[in-house]
Amino acid sequence: MADSGDHGSPGPLASVAALRAFSENFRWAKVDLLAYKEEGSAPFAGITRQILFADPLLGCELRYFEIAPGGHSTLERHEHVHAVVILRGTGRCLVGARVAAVGSHDLVHIPPMTWHQFRADGSEALGFLCMVNAKRDKPQLPSEAELAVLRTDANVAAFLDGRAR
Amino acid sequence: MADSGDHGSPGPLASVAALRAFSENFRWAKVDLLAYKEEGSAPFAGITRQILFADPLLGCELRYFEIAPGGHSTLERHEHVHAVVILRGTGRCLVGARVAAVGSHDLVHIPPMTWHQFRADGSEALGFLCMVNAKRDKPQLPSEAELAVLRTDANVAAFLDGRAR
Repeated sequence: MADSGDHGSPGPLASVAALRAFSENFRWAKVDLLAYKEEGSAPFAGITRQILFADPLLGCELRYFEIAPGGHSTLERHEHVHAVVILRGTGRCLVGARVAAVGSHDLVHIPPMTWHQFRADGSEALGFLCMVNAKRDKPQLPSEAELAVLRTDANVAAFLDGRAR
Repeated sequence: MADSGDHGSPGPLASVAALRAFSENFRWAKVDLLAYKEEGSAPFAGITRQILFADPLLGCELRYFEIAPGGHSTLERHEHVHAVVILRGTGRCLVGARVAAVGSHDLVHIPPMTWHQFRADGSEALGFLCMVNAKRDKPQLPSEAELAVLRTDANVAAFLDGRAR
């Protein structure tokens, strides 16, 4: 009867984790703090991952990433799309050839096969939600030639080097 | 070439809305403020809807709902799942037979066919993100008999009447 819902009782999933409370410093009850990626698998710095929702009944997962001041995500591209909501702090992101400052609650859309990277280049951590298809392709890293093309834009080159705009 | 990504230029989607800035009072650039539902289609009060991400390449949509003080969403159930992140304010939610206080950044999971409702019963608006499958079934409203069963729990009855806990 649990999932039929016709007597108003919570289903089995509800009893597991219907509500998970937010706690200090952007951690949540019953949510593990994970490595961003396997160490050495790709370039990144000072970034953690928490999986907030990964329900097999949902087509997407919702993750929370946090980049410590001075840190950055991997510069990469892939077929799958990212839908990002900044939750805390400020920083910059690269989407294609565009570098943009981002802050709390800004929305960032990463289209397919578009180079992207997030940097916490202010004095505070940059935390963001990222919605992504549960089934997705593996990220690609830029070749030296692709990096050279990206660097032809002075603004992009400064971003990639972590220099001020 | 735009979507091939091999020269680092943004694709066509990126040029449309790669970045949409957060503005005052939980509104976003290029995001319309919508009615929660068609007026008269179901019981609700003081609630708006903004569609933050609805990309056909994503299996889910991400919406932002905001309930004004004293308002509430529809009491309903459906096969599809909700993954909710509270973004602002405080309130209470019903999930199955459980009534819980919620506040900023708390996570709420609504399993299939589980009665649920959100109420902004504090002095401030309750705003939340809701991730949902793009393809989903239509919500069901409770029958009188189903409501009566829900009301056998005094805590649930108080919630449904908007009375203090």
